[in-house]
Amino acid sequence: MDRKNEKSEAKGKGGNKPPQSDKPEGLEVERIVNFQFLPKMVKRRVYALKRLQLQSANIEAKFYEEVHELERKYAGLYQPIFDKRRDIVAGTIEPTDEECEWQSDREEEDLAEDLQKKAALEEKQADSAGADDPKGVPEFWLTIFKRVDMLGEMLQDHDEPILKHLQDITVRFSEPGQPMSFTLEFHFEPNSYFSNSVLTKVYKMKSEPDAEDPFSFEGPEIIDCEGCKIDWQKGKDVTVKIIKKKQKHKGRGTVRTVTKELPQDSFFNFFSPVKASADGMDEDLECTLATDFEIGHFFRERVIPRAVLYFTGEALDDDDESYEEEDLEEEEEDLDEEGEEEDEGDYDPTA
Amino acid sequence: MDRKNEKSEAKGKGGNKPPQSDKPEGLEVERIVNFQFLPKMVKRRVYALKRLQLQSANIEAKFYEEVHELERKYAGLYQPIFDKRRDIVAGTIEPTDEECEWQSDREEEDLAEDLQKKAALEEKQADSAGADDPKGVPEFWLTIFKRVDMLGEMLQDHDEPILKHLQDITVRFSEPGQPMSFTLEFHFEPNSYFSNSVLTKVYKMKSEPDAEDPFSFEGPEIIDCEGCKIDWQKGKDVTVKIIKKKQKHKGRGTVRTVTKELPQDSFFNFFSPVKASADGMDEDLECTLATDFEIGHFFRERVIPRAVLYFTGEALDDDDESYEEEDLEEEEEDLDEEGEEEDEGDYDPTA
Repeated sequence: MDRKNEKSEAKGKGGNKPPQSDKPEGLEVERIVNFQFLPKMVKRRVYALKRLQLQSANIEAKFYEEVHELERKYAGLYQPIFDKRRDIVAGTIEPTDEECEWQSDREEEDLAEDLQKKAALEEKQADSAGADDPKGVPEFWLTIFKRVDMLGEMLQDHDEPILKHLQDITVRFSEPGQPMSFTLEFHFEPNSYFSNSVLTKVYKMKSEPDAEDPFSFEGPEIIDCEGCKIDWQKGKDVTVKIIKKKQKHKGRGTVRTVTKELPQDSFFNFFSPVKASADGMDEDLECTLATDFEIGHFFRERVIPRAVLYFTGEALDDDDESYEEEDLEEEEEDLDEEGEEEDEGDYDPTA
Repeated sequence: MDRKNEKSEAKGKGGNKPPQSDKPEGLEVERIVNFQFLPKMVKRRVYALKRLQLQSANIEAKFYEEVHELERKYAGLYQPIFDKRRDIVAGTIEPTDEECEWQSDREEEDLAEDLQKKAALEEKQADSAGADDPKGVPEFWLTIFKRVDMLGEMLQDHDEPILKHLQDITVRFSEPGQPMSFTLEFHFEPNSYFSNSVLTKVYKMKSEPDAEDPFSFEGPEIIDCEGCKIDWQKGKDVTVKIIKKKQKHKGRGTVRTVTKELPQDSFFNFFSPVKASADGMDEDLECTLATDFEIGHFFRERVIPRAVLYFTGEALDDDDESYEEEDLEEEEEDLDEEGEEEDEGDYDPTA
């Protein structure tokens, strides 16, 4: 399917705004004016074409259903690979030497030589610190969160110790016949923060054209989401902060301490999302929800399938290239701009 | 398949640049440094994960093959609809009353009432000018070119009389087993400009991961294209302009007239594209080629499947919404900016 890549190419260029046509005076609505001015017989045929377009839209909806079936089928084919990943990350299984063979590219090898000396020193220090043979790949998912801006933005300091216990993130699709949705499952090893072993986020989708606006359908789209209840251990809920206030009684003058719970930023608010409202929402809420949907999509399409590449940082280059609208090649960073430019990571000046 | 729509949502927000991490002094290459500093046993497991990722990439390539199969299957299902469209546009068949029934929305009806008086007058004039019952939908495809910026940019005045003869644009897919490609076919009725009945543009695609860079594969992508030879009638080639120059012989003083053929802009240069070079191309040529690929993709994914909606202009709103990165709702045009803003079409101030 070429949609993904070609779509990223196609999005870069221009808009589809029509050039100015001759507009009769006093009539600003170009589309309707032009159409209405066609001779009756021609207009009639255009309506026939629109009816054909409706048939086309309905066939297209079936196409998307079949693609979704294919995605479900392939989710089953990826599963053994993801299961193995989970086990290697957790240290439950140890890959054989053959399974660990990897040709680094020359660049990495050259740099690696220089680094090895330094690395050997640091390793010795790490080793003597008792980190001789850490189990699996420690902080695998936490590292991914830190590497990726879209996820890092959700991450607070108080979330990090909890996310060290995150063992796996998986996707589950709705069954055929059910309304279309996918569920992100965050699997945690036993920990002192909450008793859940899995935290879930369901993304619900619209998978058919609207009867009232059939032509705006562009394939299944996320329209709502739902989190889950986190069973926090006492005093461990990082989505709230406790404020103690001293209050003086106006009459008696006695002082009391009042405890208030205020919400605070945390990645774990991800599991208590804003609900979509059919009646329309204010712009901020819509924006927040749209971001939430992007994140859900991003987990499903990018992070889960390609986790190790985010861990190493390789995938970040790819994403940068997909997201840049005009650039065909990596360009030198413009160091004249704000100092932040120098921080754009995974940029290898020796390349 | 949710890719298309969700991808447009996901593209709007942020980048995936990693936040600044602690970098050892003197080492700018964050990715490699971090990875190399992992304890040996952990690094080993990460290589194992990369091998798993390779297996995953190969499975993903098969997924895209199957999606392409699906697309080929559905192309066959759309074909009868597109054939009927072609026949109605050409006037070869006349749709029945039932086939022309269409519920305009109320807005259109209200405006239509006001316009009907004006329309009736103009229709009378058009009728008496002998355009009583134009065959089919005249200038269907030419109108689409004019409505859509990306296509209009290619259109020159001298192209228009030729494009009035454009009867249909179709897509043909490569057969299974052949290298992946798609061909745009521009079907012309007999005309005085060239003898070809079909002009073709082939877009060739890469459909498998590169052995050398397996993780950058994001699905089939256009990598090259090829046009066709146009058999122009004498003096009708609009891709060249003839310049006559008088030259005086230095010795003898006699004057001769020299005819030169210089290339000129024309939509029909679309059929003589720049060739992609494996050795690398200068940035301008790469840019031109990238634009060409976008246009090819746009014809295939948008114009051909939804032609009537570009004819009426309805699809232009949809595309605007897909292309705007941050906006969730239509905003009022900012009239403080360049006057061009007022020309953004299909914007209904009465909505």
